Amino acid sequence: MSNQYLDPNLKVFSLNSNVELAQEIANVIGVELGKCSVSQFSDGEIQINIEESIRGCDVYVIQSTSSPVNENIMELLIMIDALKRASAKTINIVMPYYGYARQDRKARAREPITAKLVANLLETAGATRVITLDLHAPQIQGFFDIPIDHLMGVPILADHFKSKELNGDVVIVSPDHGGVTRARKMAERLKAPIAIIDKRRPKPNVAEVMNIVGNIEGKVAILIDDIIDTAGTITLAANALVENGAQEVYACCTHPVLSGPAIERIENSKIKELVVTNSIALAEEKRVEKIHQLSVAPLIGEAIIRVHEEQSVSTLFD
Amino acid sequence: MSNQYLDPNLKVFSLNSNVELAQEIANVIGVELGKCSVSQFSDGEIQINIEESIRGCDVYVIQSTSSPVNENIMELLIMIDALKRASAKTINIVMPYYGYARQDRKARAREPITAKLVANLLETAGATRVITLDLHAPQIQGFFDIPIDHLMGVPILADHFKSKELNGDVVIVSPDHGGVTRARKMAERLKAPIAIIDKRRPKPNVAEVMNIVGNIEGKVAILIDDIIDTAGTITLAANALVENGAQEVYACCTHPVLSGPAIERIENSKIKELVVTNSIALAEEKRVEKIHQLSVAPLIGEAIIRVHEEQSVSTLFD
Amino acid sequence: MSNQYLDPNLKVFSLNSNVELAQEIANVIGVELGKCSVSQFSDGEIQINIEESIRGCDVYVIQSTSSPVNENIMELLIMIDALKRASAKTINIVMPYYGYARQDRKARAREPITAKLVANLLETAGATRVITLDLHAPQIQGFFDIPIDHLMGVPILADHFKSKELNGDVVIVSPDHGGVTRARKMAERLKAPIAIIDKRRPKPNVAEVMNIVGNIEGKVAILIDDIIDTAGTITLAANALVENGAQEVYACCTHPVLSGPAIERIENSKIKELVVTNSIALAEEKRVEKIHQLSVAPLIGEAIIRVHEEQSVSTLFD
Amino acid sequence: MSNQYLDPNLKVFSLNSNVELAQEIANVIGVELGKCSVSQFSDGEIQINIEESIRGCDVYVIQSTSSPVNENIMELLIMIDALKRASAKTINIVMPYYGYARQDRKARAREPITAKLVANLLETAGATRVITLDLHAPQIQGFFDIPIDHLMGVPILADHFKSKELNGDVVIVSPDHGGVTRARKMAERLKAPIAIIDKRRPKPNVAEVMNIVGNIEGKVAILIDDIIDTAGTITLAANALVENGAQEVYACCTHPVLSGPAIERIENSKIKELVVTNSIALAEEKRVEKIHQLSVAPLIGEAIIRVHEEQSVSTLFD
Amino acid sequence: MSNQYLDPNLKVFSLNSNVELAQEIANVIGVELGKCSVSQFSDGEIQINIEESIRGCDVYVIQSTSSPVNENIMELLIMIDALKRASAKTINIVMPYYGYARQDRKARAREPITAKLVANLLETAGATRVITLDLHAPQIQGFFDIPIDHLMGVPILADHFKSKELNGDVVIVSPDHGGVTRARKMAERLKAPIAIIDKRRPKPNVAEVMNIVGNIEGKVAILIDDIIDTAGTITLAANALVENGAQEVYACCTHPVLSGPAIERIENSKIKELVVTNSIALAEEKRVEKIHQLSVAPLIGEAIIRVHEEQSVSTLFD
Amino acid sequence: MSNQYLDPNLKVFSLNSNVELAQEIANVIGVELGKCSVSQFSDGEIQINIEESIRGCDVYVIQSTSSPVNENIMELLIMIDALKRASAKTINIVMPYYGYARQDRKARAREPITAKLVANLLETAGATRVITLDLHAPQIQGFFDIPIDHLMGVPILADHFKSKELNGDVVIVSPDHGGVTRARKMAERLKAPIAIIDKRRPKPNVAEVMNIVGNIEGKVAILIDDIIDTAGTITLAANALVENGAQEVYACCTHPVLSGPAIERIENSKIKELVVTNSIALAEEKRVEKIHQLSVAPLIGEAIIRVHEEQSVSTLFD
Repeated sequence: MSNQYLDPNLKVFSLNSNVELAQEIANVIGVELGKCSVSQFSDGEIQINIEESIRGCDVYVIQSTSSPVNENIMELLIMIDALKRASAKTINIVMPYYGYARQDRKARAREPITAKLVANLLETAGATRVITLDLHAPQIQGFFDIPIDHLMGVPILADHFKSKELNGDVVIVSPDHGGVTRARKMAERLKAPIAIIDKRRPKPNVAEVMNIVGNIEGKVAILIDDIIDTAGTITLAANALVENGAQEVYACCTHPVLSGPAIERIENSKIKELVVTNSIALAEEKRVEKIHQLSVAPLIGEAIIRVHEEQSVSTLFD
Repeated sequence: MSNQYLDPNLKVFSLNSNVELAQEIANVIGVELGKCSVSQFSDGEIQINIEESIRGCDVYVIQSTSSPVNENIMELLIMIDALKRASAKTINIVMPYYGYARQDRKARAREPITAKLVANLLETAGATRVITLDLHAPQIQGFFDIPIDHLMGVPILADHFKSKELNGDVVIVSPDHGGVTRARKMAERLKAPIAIIDKRRPKPNVAEVMNIVGNIEGKVAILIDDIIDTAGTITLAANALVENGAQEVYACCTHPVLSGPAIERIENSKIKELVVTNSIALAEEKRVEKIHQLSVAPLIGEAIIRVHEEQSVSTLFD
Repeated sequence: MSNQYLDPNLKVFSLNSNVELAQEIANVIGVELGKCSVSQFSDGEIQINIEESIRGCDVYVIQSTSSPVNENIMELLIMIDALKRASAKTINIVMPYYGYARQDRKARAREPITAKLVANLLETAGATRVITLDLHAPQIQGFFDIPIDHLMGVPILADHFKSKELNGDVVIVSPDHGGVTRARKMAERLKAPIAIIDKRRPKPNVAEVMNIVGNIEGKVAILIDDIIDTAGTITLAANALVENGAQEVYACCTHPVLSGPAIERIENSKIKELVVTNSIALAEEKRVEKIHQLSVAPLIGEAIIRVHEEQSVSTLFD
Repeated sequence: MSNQYLDPNLKVFSLNSNVELAQEIANVIGVELGKCSVSQFSDGEIQINIEESIRGCDVYVIQSTSSPVNENIMELLIMIDALKRASAKTINIVMPYYGYARQDRKARAREPITAKLVANLLETAGATRVITLDLHAPQIQGFFDIPIDHLMGVPILADHFKSKELNGDVVIVSPDHGGVTRARKMAERLKAPIAIIDKRRPKPNVAEVMNIVGNIEGKVAILIDDIIDTAGTITLAANALVENGAQEVYACCTHPVLSGPAIERIENSKIKELVVTNSIALAEEKRVEKIHQLSVAPLIGEAIIRVHEEQSVSTLFD
Repeated sequence: MSNQYLDPNLKVFSLNSNVELAQEIANVIGVELGKCSVSQFSDGEIQINIEESIRGCDVYVIQSTSSPVNENIMELLIMIDALKRASAKTINIVMPYYGYARQDRKARAREPITAKLVANLLETAGATRVITLDLHAPQIQGFFDIPIDHLMGVPILADHFKSKELNGDVVIVSPDHGGVTRARKMAERLKAPIAIIDKRRPKPNVAEVMNIVGNIEGKVAILIDDIIDTAGTITLAANALVENGAQEVYACCTHPVLSGPAIERIENSKIKELVVTNSIALAEEKRVEKIHQLSVAPLIGEAIIRVHEEQSVSTLFD
Repeated sequence: MSNQYLDPNLKVFSLNSNVELAQEIANVIGVELGKCSVSQFSDGEIQINIEESIRGCDVYVIQSTSSPVNENIMELLIMIDALKRASAKTINIVMPYYGYARQDRKARAREPITAKLVANLLETAGATRVITLDLHAPQIQGFFDIPIDHLMGVPILADHFKSKELNGDVVIVSPDHGGVTRARKMAERLKAPIAIIDKRRPKPNVAEVMNIVGNIEGKVAILIDDIIDTAGTITLAANALVENGAQEVYACCTHPVLSGPAIERIENSKIKELVVTNSIALAEEKRVEKIHQLSVAPLIGEAIIRVHEEQSVSTLFD
């Protein structure tokens, strides 16, 4: 660690979801990760030992609530409880990926709004701030009554494509109706037009069609989403783009959930490269050649420093 | 009032924002509106007198927080306080239009999230349930920890267009990127394709262009939004559609805010008819020929009865 | 600004109710008013932009919740929400005039207690302290669970009369039964006796009589109230005093609400001079010759400095 | 018990402060007092055993928080906790006398507002409603966010004097500045004028003088206060009235605290009769001839029945 | 189902931890289990669909928070959120086994108190009552502010041993210092003396010794604990008892966690029979011959009926 | 005071329960006790005057809630309210003895859990931290959501016995089943075995017998408990030990409640010496020769310094 952060009251702890990212963030800031062990008893109950005094400190806990999501949430809540009872001054939750964010409204009768529940649980446990990245819906900020610093990963993805020398005209494509605003933002950074995949069923009992709204013929298409989970939508979209005349197809997202058949689908799809961030750690078997991972550690590390030093975080994105 | 609701514990009170709708709802249910006077002192402070005992009753208060929005919110909060202190059993807020819903996230640094603030204020005052209609973002449901019944006005709008005999193929058009999902839902009900107005600036220092993504040529275009406020976007969109070959253009929305230059813009635009609901009362001068208003009273009245009788509300939309 | 306050973490923001007073207070402290714009959208919704970072700062927001009271309360609540989400360290509400203070109890069945509601709303939004002046009832302090610094304006009014050379014996007169304690306090400072206007109806269906309890004959009477609203009571009292032999009549109050017919009544009354503070800004048309306005800016500015520097505020009144 | 209340879900429990009144109230309603023992362990800790199931019941707990006030408050809080954990449906606190009501504001720096603290403690413990009588300041109603039914004892006192045939013109006298409004209300019921005792110090280092504002000469004076504690003020007032020419002097109050030298002072004063209610139980040695005690049991019993049957309580005072 | 419960407002739902017990409980009550599906998305997020209206119902959710404890807690919290938003009247959590109960205090610096955290999470999510069985520490009742019905499983275990014809004098043995009170209660039911295993290290660096305090020679020893987890303590205790002359050794506990090497240890130990309840479902491979499982369904079913009908639950144990 | 603590923001206030201990603690820290008067009005209401500014200070309030427990709790709550409203930065409650700790669970139906109630009351009033000593049940830590520093008095008692030269082998004896863990901890410090008094009734209608589990013959027995209240159990235990052959018997506890017949029983018992701490002040008449009191002031003083300086408190016990 070449640099070293001077204020000993800034403590960074990593839980188990993404230790590599936490270590990178600690390096960016210039601190050692706080000493604690987070393990499970034989019956699966989580056991947390914080192995250094944090009395009066500003503690930053790094935990993406990615899979195993329920373990990771409980780890986080128990850690917050331990920090609160150990007299931490502030408890700042750094969640590069906010699990359950897609359960953000009642889409059908008698559904939970789990994203709100998680916000309530964090506040009840004792969190005093949340730092997060590209929330599935920006309204989730309003699920909290504590301050939340919402960082943007899209510029990192855009910079990557800008630094590539893409052959030909680019079009940014939203793989569904809900993501058009996101595509529009990416398009502005790359000064490109947009298109939309309008998946719909022409008549009852007829297969869904990947209808493309907008002009993609002969262009380099870049599909963008915030989360790629099973990769069904994005790979069908990619293939439909190629079939309809796109020259080549890239895809990108902030949060590579990549569950179930995702890797296989991506490998077998027309996607030339999938660009993601390390908001979620990729298991060894998911680190395939087609997937290119960009680090959000510099962004998050800088945000933590600014929060700690009470400087503006928004100017990071000016 | 031909029908009469039997349970005297169901009380419906109207505040000042939309008395006509409240009266219609009361008629649908079969009750008299509760007796109360809501006036202002000389200095503008609101004075509320509830003029009948509501001890132990299930009270439904009907108030759209439309313009004058701050007066209407304060009226509502003060009424809730009075009902709580007067020992109402439940205090059910019926907000056909939820003001400040567009301030639902921090779009820029140091912005409030006023839609969440309003939710917190309602809960603090003592509301025990909210019944509302076509929230600007469905995530606002999660701003509440009390139950919320979220009704849909889109079917009422769709039924209106279905009952019209439109000449030719229909296309549903979203006037911006954020409304594509809403357009998709309308399109499903009318079995039509969609298009999007992609307003963007081709180069710096060049005027914005109303680019149309999707095929609208020769078609009957129906623009849809949840709220029409100053009507700038929707009228520019309508004109762009006609210039690009649409045969004729209709527009519709649930909530006719219609502030500032809205009426003039609509009158001067290529919109043939603007279809809205009465979630917001239209002042006399806004009741122009081009605007057709559909009533949500049957929907809301039925929802209140179901809530009161503990029957499923969701089945209203099956 | 001759003096300059050194700690940059003390920020003073003004909302729209009383910008002139806010500017005076800022001058007393030696700071620039914080940069923010508080405006309304076309439909009346309030839009707040805080235009400088306030992360980690102690923010003082100056807003009298005078007319338009509901706008002013909502402005304040929304500002608090914005400050909380922008990571202010403390949010100190400076309300020289506390609107709705007269709705401080249930005087009749099913009334709200709006003064308590407002306290709850401020705490819910995120206020951490309130600084206010001459509350209508001192019990309103107990409506809050956050610290409240309750300043006294009566000494400023008393000093004014002490500095005048009044011709003859002074008597302090309370215009109603509820204000006797206030009159007693003023009387102590001026070493004068008190009298009370005992408005009552001698028999049913007979006009109310302004009965005077106490001796006022030949004396210089000073009527005192905390709030003068429509000025009915105070002007009738003044006239009754003159009719009953008072030599001349002054009137004073901390909070010049002066709504409706107030100015006309004062102009037409026997009141020689009405002395008020600038806790409420007087519109141009209310700045008539008979009204003399004293500034509370030095008092409030000094209180803010003491709060910020953690010195005793009570000693201001020793 | 001649009458018998039919709904077994209405339960009335008495704690130790005023068992006689509780028994009277139970008789008025037509129920047996609930079975419970409330005792103290050897070290003074309170032990409560509720000896019948109260699951799902509406429980009314009768406890004046009179002397020993701290014991009585703790008894009440512990009882509420026990009832809450034993699954009572509602927990209604009947406090004929609300202890600490005079500590209702910060009169000096760094004072507590104990009346608000008590309200918070009751809500925290689990009370769902408060029924009380003649609060020292009506603003204390606003210290609660649960419903509070505020009963009036003044009519009972007024009726007593109306039923007496007093010799001559009556004047109602407030013994201090704070009680003028109360005197005014009594005066209205007896159609009498008012006067005020204006205790003040003419010059520094000179004894206080009981100055009388208003005309009392030759009249039958009735002093009224809400609480008579050490009886210093009221007895000095009575004597001053006689010295200044009052024909005879009665006194009355709702809450006979009568601590310390009170009885002796009353006995030795010019007060002819002191009329009080039984909101506070009088110890045997305080039941002197001059004191006449009126029962509030019929009033409270009727209020409980109305609360339980969800009828208007305010109409009790029409 | 021979019997059928008549009130349709009583709904019983089972989550995934112990469906068999839930079905038994439903049979005891005479209801069908409520329709809902609780599954996981591909990425591990829990998805809950409640498939029947529960508006206005008293819902009982049956879930032991046994292994996988974090999944089971999150399932429960999400279910509560869904029920709350779907307008359940009451949400009663039936946790035959309360996971994390052993983390009920800070035994070392900077530990969490996870049992309290879980209580807070349940209340925050919206639970209105908890029904549970043999809490590890009875003080956990005090972690809740909602009512908690704490059932006892010891009588079921005692009855089992009473119905066996044991050869010889019985002694009840606590396997550690913390369990002596529990052993004492069992001893009372079986009218037997007690003994204690006092595991201690005679000198530093010497192996721990299973010292037996009390007389067990020639007796039938019954070891009792509330939870048997890895079975290390209990099997060492059993062996020590036999080595010290016990005639035979039985063991029992309410909650058979039986994690890790537990089954193997029990099989290889001197324990003749291990008697447990079905508060935790035993996986197929744990259903070995030595383990005898008793059902708590009749107890819990009866408790639910009594709670629902507002009858005393405590009398179940008289 | 030889040493003097430098930071003027650390303030120590004593209430009335144990002024001597408070003074000792202040001496250990090196501060003067804060100026305040805590008295009672004639009617028993507590009056608190804090006589120095504590704005922005870290305040430590020392109050054992020993007898008179209800007075002492109310004093503490009112003091907290006063400190909160006077803008203390933190309010740290130092309760060497936590009254009502034995009411920590529902042992029977419809009992309160007063120890939890007290925790809730302290948090509601505004306490931000609790420092306490040897809680009756360590789970009471979990009754709080604010940080709690739980100090251990057992080492002080153990050191006392270690410094004595006891004649012969020592055995540590728990006077009942619930205290075995405590005895075990003492035993470890003195490297001694344990025994238990197993009070039980051999048959119905036969007197209880003090059965001794474990070997005590010819040994020096040290009885240990956390609280000695009426001293019935401990003195019967001591006598039984002697009757069964113990050479001599000592007793010790942290909290000498010593109510009712305690002193007489101890004097008349076989206990040679009773060692206690000064967590509870002993009235003059309880300071008998047999009782030896050790001071916890050095321990508590050091803990306060560490809390104030944000150093680890747990290392005090390493």
